[in-house]
Amino acid sequence: MSRTEEEVLDAIEKRRRRPHVKLMDKHITLAHGAGGRSSHTLIEMVFLKELGNPVLDGLGDAAVLQAPAGSRLAFTTDASVVKPRFFPGGDIGELAVNGTVNDLAMAGARPLWLTASFILEEGLDTDELIRVAQSMGAAARRAGVTVVAGDTKVVERGMADGLYITTAGVGVIDHDTNLSAASVRPGDRVIVSGSIGDHGMAIMVARGDLELETDLRSDTAPIHDLAAALLSATDEVRWLRDPTRGGVATVLAELALACELGVVLDEAALPIKDEVNGACEILGIDPLYVANEGKLVAIVGADGANSALAALRAHPLGADAAIVGEVRADPPGMVLLETAFGGSRVVDMLAGDPLPRIC
Amino acid sequence: MSRTEEEVLDAIEKRRRRPHVKLMDKHITLAHGAGGRSSHTLIEMVFLKELGNPVLDGLGDAAVLQAPAGSRLAFTTDASVVKPRFFPGGDIGELAVNGTVNDLAMAGARPLWLTASFILEEGLDTDELIRVAQSMGAAARRAGVTVVAGDTKVVERGMADGLYITTAGVGVIDHDTNLSAASVRPGDRVIVSGSIGDHGMAIMVARGDLELETDLRSDTAPIHDLAAALLSATDEVRWLRDPTRGGVATVLAELALACELGVVLDEAALPIKDEVNGACEILGIDPLYVANEGKLVAIVGADGANSALAALRAHPLGADAAIVGEVRADPPGMVLLETAFGGSRVVDMLAGDPLPRIC
Repeated sequence: MSRTEEEVLDAIEKRRRRPHVKLMDKHITLAHGAGGRSSHTLIEMVFLKELGNPVLDGLGDAAVLQAPAGSRLAFTTDASVVKPRFFPGGDIGELAVNGTVNDLAMAGARPLWLTASFILEEGLDTDELIRVAQSMGAAARRAGVTVVAGDTKVVERGMADGLYITTAGVGVIDHDTNLSAASVRPGDRVIVSGSIGDHGMAIMVARGDLELETDLRSDTAPIHDLAAALLSATDEVRWLRDPTRGGVATVLAELALACELGVVLDEAALPIKDEVNGACEILGIDPLYVANEGKLVAIVGADGANSALAALRAHPLGADAAIVGEVRADPPGMVLLETAFGGSRVVDMLAGDPLPRIC
Repeated sequence: MSRTEEEVLDAIEKRRRRPHVKLMDKHITLAHGAGGRSSHTLIEMVFLKELGNPVLDGLGDAAVLQAPAGSRLAFTTDASVVKPRFFPGGDIGELAVNGTVNDLAMAGARPLWLTASFILEEGLDTDELIRVAQSMGAAARRAGVTVVAGDTKVVERGMADGLYITTAGVGVIDHDTNLSAASVRPGDRVIVSGSIGDHGMAIMVARGDLELETDLRSDTAPIHDLAAALLSATDEVRWLRDPTRGGVATVLAELALACELGVVLDEAALPIKDEVNGACEILGIDPLYVANEGKLVAIVGADGANSALAALRAHPLGADAAIVGEVRADPPGMVLLETAFGGSRVVDMLAGDPLPRIC
């Protein structure tokens, strides 16, 4: 802490070139969570090596940051307990970073800083923790955020499932658009930024519960840039949400309740991959309830809907964006799905948990 | 979200008067973590009831907050896995709030906002969760912070130990004092704000490992106000830290390494309660390594030391504050304890973990 920024960056660089294994135990022990010498080694050799930056390097009780003058901030948190920890398209570390980045993006914020808190199970393979930390570092660099503070606790064998990660994030809101359910009006359009249900079904396939061979991959991705493109394209964006647990159905059911309006979806317009539909049929689950980790749902005024759609489609993460429904005065507080056969049914919030530990 | 602030506050008030039990299951199920209807009920009936405020009530993906103009922010996180969850003097909920409040305070910040993320084990008694949430609410009110965002995950039976809580916090730094190891100079004094080791020993006694009858209570408390009093009393404060896991010894060992100076402690000056000394003797643990949850260690320039001590002692949480040592040029990077018998020994960082899951 007596060092110049240059010296700090130099130390980070040296740390990156240093192999992990030399100083680290092969497995996590309770001592790694005790706050003493072993904790120090773990922090130095894993977390600072992979996530290091001049702020985190200070290792103070809290990070000290310069707030952008007079701006609104977004602040959020997300725990990741996904099983399995590594799955096609991502892992728990990437999910932990992207989940919080995306929550900030849905408040219309530019994500800036994250904290990361680890609960490790005694006996966890250190190499696995290193892989997770590397993946968090890569995800943070991709999303343009820095991890500025962290915490590590270790619990006894059998008191966790390998590792759980809780991230929190702070972002800055640069624009004046007021995103809220209160801004939603009848006639507004419902837009989703791409195919739905990919993450949840990739996890179910990775668990082997389906005995299914597919190429399904999680859609985990940071969507702050996609959200920023949308917000730049039109000032008609009313409300944004990333449809994680509970899927598109649940976030829209919550919206309908909050704004006391109806949301009517057009089943034929919903972008769903064949593999997702297939896996959902086997499990008897509606893809509308399946978690996404790189998608957004937007409510946009009718006049801005085409510009919004064009902006989303111009972005690599929004190529399959679609207008999938609209807001109506009736039925208030409810979501209806109009089926391809001309019928309609009520889409309620998810009941029970068909897909535990999906994120 | 279409409501006025008055309506929101009214809704919070109504919720407080509503009994929990009517709508809640007696035990936590996986469905409470699925993001659907059960999650909603849990959030409404427990978290919003106990922690509710106009920001949290919005239930957006992230809280939107007004940053104080041009100020520096502090940002930190802390996971709480303490066992047992309820102990003399506090519980896991109070610890989760105070831990993060205190980390912010040690950066010289005024704590403003917290997030709270829960990992619940399937089968957890809902009444117990309610008690924890109530305790968090009381601790937040005492510390003057609001919980502005949260997350809840549920893992299967046997994959956690009841509940783990991770809080993150943001505070604002109103003054210009630069607290860092780099500011520490030979001749500076080491001050502790009160008796050491109370929390760790209270937990050990509560576990029943000691078969000891004592009145020992955890010292868990929010010390932001105590830190603010100290910072107002003198501009000679160089460095602050709350000596949690690893105790006073470990934070000073870290300081000595960071500033490449020596720290010399006077054993006779250390404020330690008789019951703590007694319990430590039975366990063969040095109280210098035992966790505190309502204390601070300050390095203060010699000219400000008496004012600092007076300011701490004038505060209810600092009545037993004491000057316990000083910083010297030698031995660089090391902590020495001068014993009552005229000898001295090196105080290293904690090795191993004699007291797992202390916080």
